Amino acid sequence: MNTSSLHEYEKVPEPTLRRLPWYLSNIKLMKEKGERYVSSTQISKEINIESSQIAKDLSYVKVSGRTRVGYEIDELIRVLEEFLGFTNMHKAFLFGAGSLGRALLGDSGLQHFGLEIVAAFDVNPLLVGTSVNNIPIFHTSEFLQKMAEYPVNIGVLTVPINIAQQVTDDMIAGGIKAVWNFTPFRIRVPEHIVVQNTSLYAHLAVMFNRLNFNQIK
Amino acid sequence: MNTSSLHEYEKVPEPTLRRLPWYLSNIKLMKEKGERYVSSTQISKEINIESSQIAKDLSYVKVSGRTRVGYEIDELIRVLEEFLGFTNMHKAFLFGAGSLGRALLGDSGLQHFGLEIVAAFDVNPLLVGTSVNNIPIFHTSEFLQKMAEYPVNIGVLTVPINIAQQVTDDMIAGGIKAVWNFTPFRIRVPEHIVVQNTSLYAHLAVMFNRLNFNQIK
Repeated sequence: MNTSSLHEYEKVPEPTLRRLPWYLSNIKLMKEKGERYVSSTQISKEINIESSQIAKDLSYVKVSGRTRVGYEIDELIRVLEEFLGFTNMHKAFLFGAGSLGRALLGDSGLQHFGLEIVAAFDVNPLLVGTSVNNIPIFHTSEFLQKMAEYPVNIGVLTVPINIAQQVTDDMIAGGIKAVWNFTPFRIRVPEHIVVQNTSLYAHLAVMFNRLNFNQIK
Repeated sequence: MNTSSLHEYEKVPEPTLRRLPWYLSNIKLMKEKGERYVSSTQISKEINIESSQIAKDLSYVKVSGRTRVGYEIDELIRVLEEFLGFTNMHKAFLFGAGSLGRALLGDSGLQHFGLEIVAAFDVNPLLVGTSVNNIPIFHTSEFLQKMAEYPVNIGVLTVPINIAQQVTDDMIAGGIKAVWNFTPFRIRVPEHIVVQNTSLYAHLAVMFNRLNFNQIK
């Protein structure tokens, strides 16, 4: 645990956590435009979410607005970024340096949101020993040794589906506490392990279906 | 419209569309293990979703199972992939060839799920005229001309948040019908335009919060 106060470890509802980055990006834009204060009503107008919902979401962040002027923008940005974990660098290992895995290694943008991938693992002899974006790719067999070397507790899962569960089990046995799952496979984990599923393919499926639906309407 | 039957353009609930790829990946694994038939009860055991829910989801796909033996695996894979749009290549333009944008250009895996990014747009003179993974990067001013050249109706949005709305408006004015939004910005679009939000940063925020919550529990 770090020195932040306890409130940020409250179990915030997932929908709230997913909306807060929207508010953050809108507030940043308002700051660029020279604004110094912002109210939930103003944010509401920009992004079409009820201002009562925004006020409720922001209540988790424990930032206090002032009647009539609203929140001080600089303060709100700072508090939101800290609350969301974007200012505190979280180190991660990536498992599976295939096409999607290497793409994520190449995306330095993740660091601006608190995630630093420090090493990757693969079994492909053509990849082991190389690096992407200065991030080394080790053989999967070196995972436990590297866990001892790096303060890592997040695993990014980008392996083929036929080994997704096995790699997840190995990660957890080695001490990984959170799995960011990019595979279309639904991994099973013990209750105390955090999983976030980001299935690009599921999003594509929804998009294609809606697109086709609109075309024949 | 292509020659597929009308049923796949039914407005399928989004949760169903998001679960179907899970079933697909599990069924593919069962096929690898030599299975020829699969029931919703078997899928249920593997991925911890009620078999009645699975049967209901699969009813949208209009594939018929047989009493006691279940679905024929090869048939189910074929029908699911077609239903989800993974077998029909959808062409897309990408807007914003920054770190995340170039990462997506480099991910050839998207093609296996029906998305082919055929060109990208950016204003950075260091990027315009180059290519990533054989995908050319044009100047943003060439968008309308390229819309006339390529049969594209999907736009992948990976620009900085301060131009996310403007680029979206321009895309739609140019004829884009679906926006895959990777920015943390909540874009506004007309009702007939499809939007899928994939905010990696929102997923990170949820993961960090849950991880911290577990650490102090």
